[in-house]
Amino acid sequence: MRHNLQDTISLLTGTPAVLNALLRDLPEIWTFRNEGENTWSAFDVVGHLIHAERTDWMPRVKTVLQFGETRPFASFDRLGHVREVQGKSLGQLLDEFARLRAGNLAELRALNLRPEHLELRGQHPSLGGVTLSELLATWAAHDLTHLHQISRVMAYQYRETVGPWSRYLGVMQCDGHSSSN
Amino acid sequence: MRHNLQDTISLLTGTPAVLNALLRDLPEIWTFRNEGENTWSAFDVVGHLIHAERTDWMPRVKTVLQFGETRPFASFDRLGHVREVQGKSLGQLLDEFARLRAGNLAELRALNLRPEHLELRGQHPSLGGVTLSELLATWAAHDLTHLHQISRVMAYQYRETVGPWSRYLGVMQCDGHSSSN
Repeated sequence: MRHNLQDTISLLTGTPAVLNALLRDLPEIWTFRNEGENTWSAFDVVGHLIHAERTDWMPRVKTVLQFGETRPFASFDRLGHVREVQGKSLGQLLDEFARLRAGNLAELRALNLRPEHLELRGQHPSLGGVTLSELLATWAAHDLTHLHQISRVMAYQYRETVGPWSRYLGVMQCDGHSSSN
Repeated sequence: MRHNLQDTISLLTGTPAVLNALLRDLPEIWTFRNEGENTWSAFDVVGHLIHAERTDWMPRVKTVLQFGETRPFASFDRLGHVREVQGKSLGQLLDEFARLRAGNLAELRALNLRPEHLELRGQHPSLGGVTLSELLATWAAHDLTHLHQISRVMAYQYRETVGPWSRYLGVMQCDGHSSSN
């Protein structure tokens, strides 16, 4: 299926408002609890999304445009959010994410990418050759994977509270699927 | 863990705005596509949530309060949304869901339920004895299971577009987990 960049940008544009509606001012049971040791709360996930806005997506787009496959992307630090969230409130993180996302999308739009640009190739440090199209699609799908994760982490807090309904609720059977949930 | 009804109400209150931010005015690739035959699009899920607002949650709360375990809940029609969505736009469905949810939460608040009410018991047609606490917690967790589903259905549309990143995106490995996704 051909990648329509406007579909990707539309989704990316909406995510700050989605997280805001989902998380801001909610009781802490929904936002600060995780699924057990070494797992993330919704708060942590927002920190991770901020870190990716700073160090992953647009920096990699620029690497593809400037260096093609000759310079691999910098590795992404999956624990980079620890620094991001320190001493911050959830409200501050949501504001920061919205600000960074808006700035990055303004930069992306200013590049005026055309279909032929989407075929440009870069070098991922572990995946190998990838296209700009795949990178941009992944930016959007990454929002969705973390929305999927946040809804699961939130549901986990009610795993006992729902009693026997647990078996009818698919989210209660989901245990995540990979390193990036 | 004790069920704090305010936690449940806070989550239920936010869901219409979450779905609105996530879906309204998005390109149809995100809202009208499903995961294959006999699966639901985001549009269908909103129809299902509307149907549950009309026929499931508050009607069952009232059944518990009026009849306790002596009258089983009416069965929920998982295909009831087909009627709900016919001839409607996604915007109309989102408005309808927000209106129904606000009305149901006003009714719930007006009941002034106290902790002792939460222990009252009702009869589920297939699960057997359940408490009012479990029913109300499930109302909230049901929002989350469908947010989890919607994010998965949306991500599915990019399963090829993301190329090799697919393996790093947990949502792409999720195939749903039960009859209520």
